[in-house]
Amino acid sequence: AEGHPGHHGSEQSSHRLLAYSDALISIIATVMILPVCHTKIRADQELEESLQQLLSTKIAVYIMTFLIVTVAWASHIRLFQVIERIDDVLALLNLACMMLITFLPYTFSLMASFPDDTLGILSFCVCAIIIGLIQAVIVIYGFHRPYLLNAHICASEDQFSYKYQILKMILRAPALFLLAGILSFIYCPVAYAVLALVIFLPYITQCTQWCRNKIKGPKELQRVPFYSFHPNEPLSKERVEAFSDGVFAIVATLLILDICEDNVPEGKEVAEKFNGKLIEALSEYGPEFLAYFGSFVTVGLLWFVHHSLFLYITKSTRLMGLLNTLSLAFVGGLPLAFRLTHEFAANSRNELEAIQISCVIIFLASLFQFAIWAAALYNEKETLHHHIRYGGKEHALMFAKLSLYPSVAFVTFCLTYVLSKFSTEIFHLMQIIVPFAFVLLRIIVQIVLAILAWLFSRLKPRTSLLIEEEESVISVSEVAS
Amino acid sequence: AEGHPGHHGSEQSSHRLLAYSDALISIIATVMILPVCHTKIRADQELEESLQQLLSTKIAVYIMTFLIVTVAWASHIRLFQVIERIDDVLALLNLACMMLITFLPYTFSLMASFPDDTLGILSFCVCAIIIGLIQAVIVIYGFHRPYLLNAHICASEDQFSYKYQILKMILRAPALFLLAGILSFIYCPVAYAVLALVIFLPYITQCTQWCRNKIKGPKELQRVPFYSFHPNEPLSKERVEAFSDGVFAIVATLLILDICEDNVPEGKEVAEKFNGKLIEALSEYGPEFLAYFGSFVTVGLLWFVHHSLFLYITKSTRLMGLLNTLSLAFVGGLPLAFRLTHEFAANSRNELEAIQISCVIIFLASLFQFAIWAAALYNEKETLHHHIRYGGKEHALMFAKLSLYPSVAFVTFCLTYVLSKFSTEIFHLMQIIVPFAFVLLRIIVQIVLAILAWLFSRLKPRTSLLIEEEESVISVSEVAS
Repeated sequence: AEGHPGHHGSEQSSHRLLAYSDALISIIATVMILPVCHTKIRADQELEESLQQLLSTKIAVYIMTFLIVTVAWASHIRLFQVIERIDDVLALLNLACMMLITFLPYTFSLMASFPDDTLGILSFCVCAIIIGLIQAVIVIYGFHRPYLLNAHICASEDQFSYKYQILKMILRAPALFLLAGILSFIYCPVAYAVLALVIFLPYITQCTQWCRNKIKGPKELQRVPFYSFHPNEPLSKERVEAFSDGVFAIVATLLILDICEDNVPEGKEVAEKFNGKLIEALSEYGPEFLAYFGSFVTVGLLWFVHHSLFLYITKSTRLMGLLNTLSLAFVGGLPLAFRLTHEFAANSRNELEAIQISCVIIFLASLFQFAIWAAALYNEKETLHHHIRYGGKEHALMFAKLSLYPSVAFVTFCLTYVLSKFSTEIFHLMQIIVPFAFVLLRIIVQIVLAILAWLFSRLKPRTSLLIEEEESVISVSEVAS
Repeated sequence: AEGHPGHHGSEQSSHRLLAYSDALISIIATVMILPVCHTKIRADQELEESLQQLLSTKIAVYIMTFLIVTVAWASHIRLFQVIERIDDVLALLNLACMMLITFLPYTFSLMASFPDDTLGILSFCVCAIIIGLIQAVIVIYGFHRPYLLNAHICASEDQFSYKYQILKMILRAPALFLLAGILSFIYCPVAYAVLALVIFLPYITQCTQWCRNKIKGPKELQRVPFYSFHPNEPLSKERVEAFSDGVFAIVATLLILDICEDNVPEGKEVAEKFNGKLIEALSEYGPEFLAYFGSFVTVGLLWFVHHSLFLYITKSTRLMGLLNTLSLAFVGGLPLAFRLTHEFAANSRNELEAIQISCVIIFLASLFQFAIWAAALYNEKETLHHHIRYGGKEHALMFAKLSLYPSVAFVTFCLTYVLSKFSTEIFHLMQIIVPFAFVLLRIIVQIVLAILAWLFSRLKPRTSLLIEEEESVISVSEVAS
């Protein structure tokens, strides 16, 4: 009954509000891949040339939108780490905030299409300022009704100082956006510089702090919990999962949306061109269906790896959240990559390049997933379930799961260079083999481990010493952390 | 730590798998509204005529897809009420099942476009048979590893009989689909009849059982829990919420997807047609933006009402699930309705009709939400939090929340008949007023209640008797339930 209304009558658990917000934000983050996907490429055009045109604006807009929306999402997380329970007013204010966030991609594509016009940057700044003001209103409202607040802040005696500091952090962004808006009337490039500064400030601060911590050792405790950009600061694992699920779900279905809309042949066409034989008309769309199944399987399996990893993560940090965002940004590019693979004539240079781009995107998306684990292992006592720590009983299996896609994508990429004539066949073979590899992974890992153990026991007969060595490595890392 | 792996090493909580499945299914359920939305309507065409054309196939496809996908979703819920924990193999099998479900809308639109061709019905049957077989494999796998099963079945001594009965229920549908597939080669209409029977069997059984229960009183207990179609049977409230959130989120963003893709003007066009004035070029798209904000606000507020209602629901039943599905099917139609309102010339007959259609859709979507509450009140002891039962302290507020949209839509509809000249203004005024009405609802309800109390106290000075009467009504309903 934890979700039910509390004793103040009107306040409620924020769980479902956050789930809905995550769903909206994940759709919006991936929406700008659609204009990229729907760019018409003529089959006779060289891909490199058209890619340059694509890369120049649309892909840049997609990546920037993804980053900006995730920045807005991160600030939303921070906000609702302070406000833990909601009431009707907060729910409605949050919906207003969501509406403005969903409008951000449009202002951004205006900026990209008309970089010299102040209208794009101005509309972006106006949206961002209103979002900031709504967040400030939410905080003020929350401190007015302390039972809505985080238990830690609610119990604190220094509520006023908390409120002041949080408001200062929230209102810093709108103030800078206001500055950018005013500057846009005077000289656009400076306004863009201010904009970039505001947007990437959290990331830059994270990186510098992380580097400084590595050199100087961890700093003293921050005064306001949640409202800092420390990379080891906890990030709601539930929300990272909900956001990732949303992105994976929308990306997996993007191609079927297109297929349902565009690839139903017209009755007249079938009767005239194919003598009324529907199956012949549909076989024209064969490559589209293949691309759909390929992208669904790849996205589904990347979700599966993500799900397996986060199952064993006990606490997620900002650094892991950043790596997750980067991974998801590449996942969003998958439908584009798979669509490209069937746009060109068989065995053309374009097709080869499209396949190689697909491999690179799969490689990077899965590599960043691996990086999440690597970042978690760095601090494994806090962040990981004991099963997948160094020496844990699921450690090898998790390693295999996370490294399967990067290695397969890398091998496929190399093979398409060497055997460029058979690149399509190699790529499709890879798509068919990988799901089976995942099904049989546990058995494969056990066989490989048995072989390794046998090899080690032949090379070094002192197996017991090896285990001792491994254990000493673990204890060293324990001391280090 | 409930989500973490259990002591068998490989089994996991199914929570996130189900959330991801819900996200995928909700996107797929609403996807067929896109071809309807994107149907080009010439401004000079009469809406009625084009609507007939629309209604004939595309809207029918949308509604049928929605119902079929929700039937598949209901069977997915039943399945994972038996299988409560998952492992890697089940996660991968479920992904395969999801891929086939995402393909169902396409086969359905093939059927609608080529009703005489066997290919459409055949591909649908093949998908449905494979889905059924995968579900059977999941059940067999689950019974092979009893720690994955529902605690009740796991503890039962009669596992074999459970397994047998569940498999029989699951395989009934594929067997009938196989029959339909074979029949499609002989005589298509019979095959369609069999198909309709399989798809609507759960709904028909629900209705007949409900009617019979009302007449004859409740039957004896079912043998297999979860695998019956009893309308009072519990339906996972969490999954109903997740599915609804997915539908609301995708519907709320459908129009911004279109706007981001289509409504960024081209640099050349702006330079030539508008003398380089971007703002003039954008003002052309004004109606599109208005439609977007209108549909986002309406969908957002309908989500808010849904959220408020489900917060106080302690147990959801199949009947409530069915009403919720119907409500969501109309919610999915909202972007279409709002798009229509700006497609036509101002004050044309088409525009008036488009506005009236919008009102009808809003009315029906919100009325079915009200019906969920009415169905819950029928059995309030089991299904509702005491705050919103008859006489509960939030009862009046919930009534106001749920009846606001139906009454506003009804009044707007009537007003557009009477004052057809000002229909657009009335409609936009409605859109602006409703959010404020929701913000101030608590105060409005208190004022109305105070006025009512004052009126009653003037009419009947014996207020105490009135309260006693109300209490006796409650006790009667308690006895009846």
